[in-house]
Amino acid sequence: MQKRSATTRAQILNAAERIFAQSGFDSSGVAEICQAAGVSKGAFYYHFPSKQAVFLELLQNWLAELEGHLEQVRQENQSVPQSLLQMASAMRQVFRAADGRLPMFLEFWTQASRDPTFWAATIAPYRQFQRYFSELVTQGVAQGSLKKVDPQASSRVIIALAVGMLFQGLLDPQSDDWAQVTQQGMCYLMTGLAAEAL
Amino acid sequence: MQKRSATTRAQILNAAERIFAQSGFDSSGVAEICQAAGVSKGAFYYHFPSKQAVFLELLQNWLAELEGHLEQVRQENQSVPQSLLQMASAMRQVFRAADGRLPMFLEFWTQASRDPTFWAATIAPYRQFQRYFSELVTQGVAQGSLKKVDPQASSRVIIALAVGMLFQGLLDPQSDDWAQVTQQGMCYLMTGLAAEAL
Repeated sequence: MQKRSATTRAQILNAAERIFAQSGFDSSGVAEICQAAGVSKGAFYYHFPSKQAVFLELLQNWLAELEGHLEQVRQENQSVPQSLLQMASAMRQVFRAADGRLPMFLEFWTQASRDPTFWAATIAPYRQFQRYFSELVTQGVAQGSLKKVDPQASSRVIIALAVGMLFQGLLDPQSDDWAQVTQQGMCYLMTGLAAEAL
Repeated sequence: MQKRSATTRAQILNAAERIFAQSGFDSSGVAEICQAAGVSKGAFYYHFPSKQAVFLELLQNWLAELEGHLEQVRQENQSVPQSLLQMASAMRQVFRAADGRLPMFLEFWTQASRDPTFWAATIAPYRQFQRYFSELVTQGVAQGSLKKVDPQASSRVIIALAVGMLFQGLLDPQSDDWAQVTQQGMCYLMTGLAAEAL
């Protein structure tokens, strides 16, 4: 029974991901998601209180996958500057996954910004990344591969670079190779943060 | 007559700015803006085709003001790295002006993202900033105050820093002094881009 329940949950998430990408967040209804997933409305509401909750879980799964990838990169590299440069190359997948989905994210965030509880859940993953990079910088400073920079501020700069490039890339996709520019940008930043020439 | 027309236009813009900030973009109607401005609907539509057009003009005026401020900073400073560091301090006003207005911007962008013509008008100011910083970096490289970095990529990094900090600051306003973190971030980036130690 528990296994069947997990399968239903996964079916809903898979169907919702397709529907949101196709129709946008506002236009996609629970009925449409249920139909595509082949589940009843009762089954849907057993697993999720709302379509917002489905979107939030998709977002969290997607960010968890990204974090898993970053963690793998970190374990493969000797130094923090090397890790960060290689993490920047992971942005190619992020750009690919986000391609054409700006309206969907904007619609979701607009709804989320009207609901304080929901908003808090939306920013939780952001704070998690903030802690992640802050710890990475702390480690780099301790190892001597980074200058004695402020870990919290450095983490925010690293996230600003990623988010700011994603924003520009979604706004104006044709005007550049955004993944490459992101890597170039991380290289400039690392020249400023690293203890030695890269 | 022309003077009266300009006054009416300014009244509409001033009223709309207040209404949008108070009620958000979606909930504000042309009728409400007309009432607050003390103008007729006929007068409104003589000046603007839609509330979207009013918002776009407000955004453009606001960005033109920011650009005027940046240009003043540029003319006051000898070197490009100094200019960029001082420009980062202008972010304090940007954060103040944007404070509490994330829902309004999200609603506006959501509507804009559904309309290709409108979207093109929305990204025009972005491209203007891109050119502005690209020229500034080109000048810095020519003067020898910056390393031989790529002007286009550097400009995108500078904008990513500003936009990415603004995004984080609007998402999670209480967690930091965002204007100060932005300055700190620009300082790290400039350490990477400048030809000599700052």
